[in-house]
Amino acid sequence: MRNLTTDNITQAVIDEFSSCDDERLKELLNGLVKHLHAYLREVEPTEKEWTQAIEFLTRAGQMCDDERQEFILLSDTLGVTMLVDAINHSSSDPKITESTVLGPFYVADPPQANQGDAINWGVEGEPLFIEGNVHDAQGKPLANVTIDVWQSDSEGFYDVQKPELESASLRARFHTDSQGYYAFWTVTPSPYPIPTDGPVGKMLEITGRHPYRPAHVHFMLMAPGYETLVTQIFAEDDPYLDSDAVFGVKDSLVKEFAQQPAGQAPDGRQMETPYRYFHYDFGLKTA
Amino acid sequence: MRNLTTDNITQAVIDEFSSCDDERLKELLNGLVKHLHAYLREVEPTEKEWTQAIEFLTRAGQMCDDERQEFILLSDTLGVTMLVDAINHSSSDPKITESTVLGPFYVADPPQANQGDAINWGVEGEPLFIEGNVHDAQGKPLANVTIDVWQSDSEGFYDVQKPELESASLRARFHTDSQGYYAFWTVTPSPYPIPTDGPVGKMLEITGRHPYRPAHVHFMLMAPGYETLVTQIFAEDDPYLDSDAVFGVKDSLVKEFAQQPAGQAPDGRQMETPYRYFHYDFGLKTA
Ligand SMILES: [Fe+2]
Ligand SMILES: [Fe+2]
Repeated sequence: MRNLTTDNITQAVIDEFSSCDDERLKELLNGLVKHLHAYLREVEPTEKEWTQAIEFLTRAGQMCDDERQEFILLSDTLGVTMLVDAINHSSSDPKITESTVLGPFYVADPPQANQGDAINWGVEGEPLFIEGNVHDAQGKPLANVTIDVWQSDSEGFYDVQKPELESASLRARFHTDSQGYYAFWTVTPSPYPIPTDGPVGKMLEITGRHPYRPAHVHFMLMAPGYETLVTQIFAEDDPYLDSDAVFGVKDSLVKEFAQQPAGQAPDGRQMETPYRYFHYDFGLKTA
Repeated sequence: MRNLTTDNITQAVIDEFSSCDDERLKELLNGLVKHLHAYLREVEPTEKEWTQAIEFLTRAGQMCDDERQEFILLSDTLGVTMLVDAINHSSSDPKITESTVLGPFYVADPPQANQGDAINWGVEGEPLFIEGNVHDAQGKPLANVTIDVWQSDSEGFYDVQKPELESASLRARFHTDSQGYYAFWTVTPSPYPIPTDGPVGKMLEITGRHPYRPAHVHFMLMAPGYETLVTQIFAEDDPYLDSDAVFGVKDSLVKEFAQQPAGQAPDGRQMETPYRYFHYDFGLKTA
């Protein structure tokens, strides 16, 4: 293992991993070495470019904390997250809801809320009523499904980006009732840029890509015996549906966030202002 | 750009970079997307494996500071650094000294030292005298070449790893004299493990790879009109020459660190103990 050249170094590195007992880890590392080396042989980076790549990764790592994940943003903006999603969740069954990216703003164990609650604690905006049912692949209603929801406000900010908020907001955990039904009030989200103050934002800027995502509400549905569903529902009239910075839009996840006049809402609430409304039914896949 | 699948997402991401004005950056990013996606399609990572990769990169970034560069260690241990080196510095001219990895312990602007100085300030060890000449591809001596040297102590530690040291040690800057000659005293370095307290060390451990590098002295030679040479000279009797954790050994860089009895050293110094000695001539390539 001396005098390695562009021709034999890849096999030399793979040979070093040969005594790895974990066959899957060995497969992942050998594939990484093979494809990464093939990339480098193809583009022939200068040493300055290599240094810039190291610096990029370092800055990305240094941006990361409990509420910011620059490597997820990198994965998202390079289409890696959606590719991994497609590899793991391709279903041709139209009764099963399609998945999309988790994004960097999910917070585990959000505040528990009750059927019909408004979750825009401390946040103003155009009211939005969301309701629907959860069913299995045969259309059978699923009771007691855990539904975590999270979204931006009407200016495009998540609660974790707003230090002035006294509590979590625009994120909550619901459970479907005995009929598989869920409902809650929130405010209409807006399109927003992914965080641009780190190296990923810089990459988008210098390559002429915009950082926007179409307006959406995130959902994560969990029930014993079913695959966890991570998805988003997108607003039908959004200008970024065909250029989502993270490649996450699917037609089956686009819904009209319908404008409604003031008056009685579907849950009986008397609205003094216009509001928006959508109904979405989720189908879960058996695990 | 909706409903992307494993088959069309790669082209969709490449298309998003199409308006990048910087043609070289576009080439680097498009190649990255193409090879990274090909890797993922081949190994089909689970979402848990993807999450573990994100966590690995995050931990690596969080290890980095002014004196620790975990991404360089990652590049080194995956053979990437030596591959980039081979792409940029393959020379078949035996008069030109071969290059190898910079490593994570280089510090810019080391202490200036004079011809023949001992640089083991505050550090004990078996004395080692190093001397030689620097020449160009025609063998012509090169005066006033800047030579930065750095190395571990006889327990395998660099000064930056020893907070008890009051100053830099085992690193210095020399200049060749009018005959292209350089000389200095130091102590014999020992093999050492690359830092194993981070995610790269963990990767080596769980894959059954040892973290050791054969004993070496680092050299960086800089002169106007010549390519900067980054290299290392390895001790001939070292047990790790054929399993260097960073794939950096070349036969032309291996030298006997010859044991010498007490007595007069080549520079006239009277040694009361045995010491080691090597002579190494460096050849620089015209820029
Ligand atoms: Fe989002
Ligand atoms: Fe070293």
